Amino acid sequence: MSSGLGAGLPLGTGVPGVFLSPPGFERVIGLLRDGIAALAADEPFHRLVIPPVISRATIERAGYVAAFPNLLGTVHGYGGTPNGWARLKPLVEQGGEWHAQQQIGDLVLLPAACYPVYAALEGKALDEPAKVTVEASCFRQEATSEPGRMRSFRMLELVTVATDEHCLKWRAARLEQVEGWFTELGLAVSVEVADDPFFGPGRKVYQAAQRMQELKWELRVPVADGTVQAVASANYHKEHFGDTFGITAGGEPANTSCVAFGLERLAMALITRHGEDSTQWPADVLAALGGGRRA
Amino acid sequence: MSSGLGAGLPLGTGVPGVFLSPPGFERVIGLLRDGIAALAADEPFHRLVIPPVISRATIERAGYVAAFPNLLGTVHGYGGTPNGWARLKPLVEQGGEWHAQQQIGDLVLLPAACYPVYAALEGKALDEPAKVTVEASCFRQEATSEPGRMRSFRMLELVTVATDEHCLKWRAARLEQVEGWFTELGLAVSVEVADDPFFGPGRKVYQAAQRMQELKWELRVPVADGTVQAVASANYHKEHFGDTFGITAGGEPANTSCVAFGLERLAMALITRHGEDSTQWPADVLAALGGGRRA
Repeated sequence: MSSGLGAGLPLGTGVPGVFLSPPGFERVIGLLRDGIAALAADEPFHRLVIPPVISRATIERAGYVAAFPNLLGTVHGYGGTPNGWARLKPLVEQGGEWHAQQQIGDLVLLPAACYPVYAALEGKALDEPAKVTVEASCFRQEATSEPGRMRSFRMLELVTVATDEHCLKWRAARLEQVEGWFTELGLAVSVEVADDPFFGPGRKVYQAAQRMQELKWELRVPVADGTVQAVASANYHKEHFGDTFGITAGGEPANTSCVAFGLERLAMALITRHGEDSTQWPADVLAALGGGRRA
Repeated sequence: MSSGLGAGLPLGTGVPGVFLSPPGFERVIGLLRDGIAALAADEPFHRLVIPPVISRATIERAGYVAAFPNLLGTVHGYGGTPNGWARLKPLVEQGGEWHAQQQIGDLVLLPAACYPVYAALEGKALDEPAKVTVEASCFRQEATSEPGRMRSFRMLELVTVATDEHCLKWRAARLEQVEGWFTELGLAVSVEVADDPFFGPGRKVYQAAQRMQELKWELRVPVADGTVQAVASANYHKEHFGDTFGITAGGEPANTSCVAFGLERLAMALITRHGEDSTQWPADVLAALGGGRRA
C-alpha cells in the first residue's frame, strides 16, 4: 500500500526544502552514485560516510560561521532538570515557548560533506595525496525554495589534500571529466566561474577575490523547466584547510580541492530531461550511470 | 592514501557519539541493509529514504517534545541582518557568544525514522494496511557515550499502519522473525519488555503503563565486550499516531507498529562477534546477510 507516499519525485513534508525520497527517486540517486563511482574508479579513493552533524568547533575554525552564519543550522538542546521541564511542558500543547531555555551545544548541522575530512587529517604530514570520497546529508538554511533548492540535501564529493600543484591539476582534470559526463547524460551543461554567498561585511571583496582566483567553478544544468542551477562544483581552497588544521604536504601547508555533486539536484535534472521512470532512460544514459543495473 | 581515516571501526570526530563510517564498517552496514531487505521481502513494503531533519510542528504534535525534551536537538539559525552580523562576527574568533541571537526555526533533528511516515499519511482513510520501510540518520542528545550509544546514528524501520488486530499480529510475527535472524547471525539475543526514557513529570507512570501493556519489546545483544544493548525494538503505539494525524483504518483510528533496527549498534555487535573483516565471516552468517555479496 503506497498511496500518497510518492513514486518518482521527492515527497513534500509540509516544510519548505525538506523532502522524503520515494523508490523511483531513490533509484535515480543510486544510479548517480554508481555513475560517480565509475568516474572515480581511476584513483584509489578512501570512502567515508559522514553523519549529518559535525563538531561546532570544527565549523567555527573552518571559517564557515564567520562567512555563512545565515545558512548554518546550530543544534540546541534542553539541559534543565525534570522539575524545570514540568513548568515548560504545558507550553508544548499551548503553542507557547517551551523552547525558551534551549541552549547551543557542541554540534551544528553539516553544511558540506568534506569538512570532516580536513578535520580527520588534522596535524598530519602527507607524503602523497590524500584522496577521499564522502557522502552526507547536508543542511543549509536557504531563504527561498525554488525548484532544486532544498534545505536538507545529499552531497557526494571527491576530495584531495596535497600540494598546490597536485590540487590544481587534479581539479582541472576532474572538472573536464565531469563536464563530459554531464554531456553523456544528455544534460545541457555550462561551466562558469562562481562565488559563494558570503554574508555581512566584506561580502563583495571576498566574492571578487574568489572569482579572480577562479577558486570555484560551477556546473549548471536545467533542473526543472525554466530553472538552471548548479548541480556540481569544482573547488580549490588553496592552503585554507591545510593552515586551519595543520596538515602539510611535501613539507608545506597542504592545499585542498574537491568536486561536489548535489545528488537531488542532479536527479531532478535527469528526470526533467529523461522522464520519471529511470528504467526507461536511453541506453547510453544508463551506460553512463554504471550500467543502470539498480533494482 | 587512507592513513588515519579508519578501516573497519567507526572513526571518532572529537565530539562524543558522532562518528564517520570508513569502508569496512560501511560494508557491514550494507550487509545489514541486505539482510533486513531479505527479512522484509515477504511483504510489499514501500521504501522511503528520510532526511535527518523534520518539521518541528510534527514532532511537537507527535508527543516527542513533551516526553523526551532532553534528547531532542532543535535547529536554530541566525535571522538577523548583515550589519547585525558585523557586530557578532568578531566573536567567532574570540570564542565569544556569536550565537547569542540564534533563534529556533521550523525544524528539529529527526529522533526516529518512522515519524515522517505517520505525518505523510495524515488524514488518510486506509482500506488495507500501509507497509513502509524507512531509513534515516537519527539524533538523540544522549548524556553518556558508552560503546554503541551514539548521538547520530542510522535507523532502519519496518512500519505498518492498520487496524489494532493487524498491528499486534504483525508485530508479534516480526519480533519472532527478528529474534530468529539474530540467532542465525550468531548473536546471543534476549527479548525483553522495555520502556522509553520519559523525562520529567509522570515518568514512572508512563513507563509502568508502557510495560504493563507490553508496547515495547527490545532485542538486546552484546555490542562490545561487557556491554549488552538494545539493537532493535518492536513497538506498538496503539492509536497514538492515528489519532494525532487523523488516519483511519477500517473506519476506526488507525493503529501503528514498527520494528526498528539500530544499524551502527548491530554492526558493532556483528564485529564484536565475528571480527572486523566481514569478508571472512562464517558462510552461514553471510547467508543471513543477503548472501554477503557487498563490494
